[in-house]
Amino acid sequence: MDNHPLICEKLDQAVTILQRLSIDAWLTFVRETVLTPDPSLNLIVGSEMVWQSAFIITRDGKRIAIVGLHDAENIRQIGGYTEVLTYVQGISDTLRKALLDINPSSLALNFSENDVAADGLGHGMMLLLRRYLKDTPLPDRFISSEKVIDALRGQKSPIEIERIKTAIATTQSIFKQVGELARPGMSELEIANYVHTRLIEKGLGTAWDWDYCPTISCGPDSPVGHAGPQAQYTVQPGTLIHMDFGVRENNYCADLQRVWYVQKPGEDAPPADLVSAFGSARKALLAGFNALRPGARGWEIDEAARSTLVAEGYPEYQHAFGHHVGQMAHDGATVLGPRWERYGDTPYGIIEAGNIFAIELGVVTEGYGYVGLEENVLVTENGAVWLSDPQEAPWLI
Amino acid sequence: MDNHPLICEKLDQAVTILQRLSIDAWLTFVRETVLTPDPSLNLIVGSEMVWQSAFIITRDGKRIAIVGLHDAENIRQIGGYTEVLTYVQGISDTLRKALLDINPSSLALNFSENDVAADGLGHGMMLLLRRYLKDTPLPDRFISSEKVIDALRGQKSPIEIERIKTAIATTQSIFKQVGELARPGMSELEIANYVHTRLIEKGLGTAWDWDYCPTISCGPDSPVGHAGPQAQYTVQPGTLIHMDFGVRENNYCADLQRVWYVQKPGEDAPPADLVSAFGSARKALLAGFNALRPGARGWEIDEAARSTLVAEGYPEYQHAFGHHVGQMAHDGATVLGPRWERYGDTPYGIIEAGNIFAIELGVVTEGYGYVGLEENVLVTENGAVWLSDPQEAPWLI
Repeated sequence: MDNHPLICEKLDQAVTILQRLSIDAWLTFVRETVLTPDPSLNLIVGSEMVWQSAFIITRDGKRIAIVGLHDAENIRQIGGYTEVLTYVQGISDTLRKALLDINPSSLALNFSENDVAADGLGHGMMLLLRRYLKDTPLPDRFISSEKVIDALRGQKSPIEIERIKTAIATTQSIFKQVGELARPGMSELEIANYVHTRLIEKGLGTAWDWDYCPTISCGPDSPVGHAGPQAQYTVQPGTLIHMDFGVRENNYCADLQRVWYVQKPGEDAPPADLVSAFGSARKALLAGFNALRPGARGWEIDEAARSTLVAEGYPEYQHAFGHHVGQMAHDGATVLGPRWERYGDTPYGIIEAGNIFAIELGVVTEGYGYVGLEENVLVTENGAVWLSDPQEAPWLI
Repeated sequence: MDNHPLICEKLDQAVTILQRLSIDAWLTFVRETVLTPDPSLNLIVGSEMVWQSAFIITRDGKRIAIVGLHDAENIRQIGGYTEVLTYVQGISDTLRKALLDINPSSLALNFSENDVAADGLGHGMMLLLRRYLKDTPLPDRFISSEKVIDALRGQKSPIEIERIKTAIATTQSIFKQVGELARPGMSELEIANYVHTRLIEKGLGTAWDWDYCPTISCGPDSPVGHAGPQAQYTVQPGTLIHMDFGVRENNYCADLQRVWYVQKPGEDAPPADLVSAFGSARKALLAGFNALRPGARGWEIDEAARSTLVAEGYPEYQHAFGHHVGQMAHDGATVLGPRWERYGDTPYGIIEAGNIFAIELGVVTEGYGYVGLEENVLVTENGAVWLSDPQEAPWLI
């Protein structure tokens, strides 16, 4: 798939964002990105850089790439850069000159305390950049580019929205196949292997680490969380199968959870207490969904869902209610989460139209296992709309 | 494949390295490593971390992991950590206490100006860590862990050497298949697609970015470097096919180059000037190979090869002669390269037994295309030994 139209779309968007934020220039400084990728590169470059490379976007519309000689051809082919400068022995002279020509009053750089998606600049790279620019006024004008990157990643462009919808459709079709396959006695590992085989056939990747995507929990004893599927836990009548999964397709992800109840012989409906737990979780999820609208803060959405779940008599979930989905399952920027230390200031971010979130929560049920719900939604001017087909009751096996 | 024995092997090795370097403790501080991976994690952890996580290894043999609640089970399963501490809302209290208990006189941290493989700490993460540890003496004791990481990545363990040998064997078998397939008129893109199909069948990845691995140049007009294979350049009688390629197998890479000459009707040997150019390139490669021994500096190896090529009447190649190969095609640490700005101080590193390098150089030939040679070698106490079967003449099609 040709990514150049998508990258050109995002480069245009970046200029608009710099204008809106009144930032003169945004510099993304990277090297050997196979080892230490910068999360923005897939949006504004689309290929790996080997030598030290700088991508400068300015408020007045310049898009300058400074790259090693051998990387230049790839950048030219994008068609979105106004200048592609090259070097062989060292980048510093060219970089210094380009930045001094622009002479920005503020220079947004790719580091951030709060947003991992905006923190691609290694600390060693920061030391190096300061050294390259010493004796210039530029280091005193460094600011974090997190607001630029948050907006650029967060506001999905038309091509991006289409790709995420495709990833969701594929993920949902695999959930359906799993439901048809799963039978008592089958292990978590067997189900995961089945899913991986489907992905290999389709030439697709997983939304996160292959070994932990899908994560599958069978029954009440299997550990919930980011653990890999285990051979010793199997599908058991009278318990749940819980699966957290998403495909990566054309470099965009889905991130969904589904729950099945494995009926015991003679049962013709899931147990009432399980149905009630599912209903409470769903009520809390809907409370968060209904709170999603442009202008709201991330933590407000979390609180709507969290307080509903607690009012239903369940303990608080120990994670955030929602996160952006895009090129990554956890796509950085604003988190729909509580104001806890580990979220930094990401829960204070403002929801914007064009954002796509995974929203999720769950409850642990005595004797059955984990009831986890997760859907993907798009924020529009009028509130959120579902991109996935929301699960309305435990699926039955 | 179970990576836990490999990780335990590397954790043991890390303790030995800290003792040798007289460094009290090494801290690797990371978050959401799918987005911003730390290159050391595959050596000492082996799975992605979602929340902020800290891995502390001490000179007296402690290996402490501090991770989010949901990541703990994966870490426990490794079996190599002496303590696995967990948190939910924020890591700072647990991290501060663990570090103050150790009270290291120097604390090696995962940042480096020179070595990208040792620069996994985002600048934002450094700011965060300083904030977590303010009012303690620890920030004044931060040092770069680049020497620790360089030694740990660079000295391949027995399991690592076996895996790299496997990747080389697979890569060589694919080169052989390409030689059997390639015919005049076939495009670079067709050859690359053929290679990718073989990889998909085998369930293997590429040593670098899929779209640029293999890189293939047909004839004198195709741009050499990191450009992707093009549909408009085709195999032409009387010119070269050059291919730079390596598979990633069990997470270890090969990185090799091979050259074919496409004979014209009636030709029964490659042209004499081409043979001569290949011979000069090979002579320079061997000069570097012969210089490789424990105790030498990286730049000395490069100089042996570079000066030989220049003495043969060719211009200097515009890259380094060699780089480590391991989990990455460019595996960080010491570079066998010239003392140019962009290599920082990596050419000053000292070669050690157990290092595995890709060594490479090439010459551009008038009318034929690029003659690039690249082999993979292991450094032993007695000098280098070939891991690949070195190409001794252009292969013929």
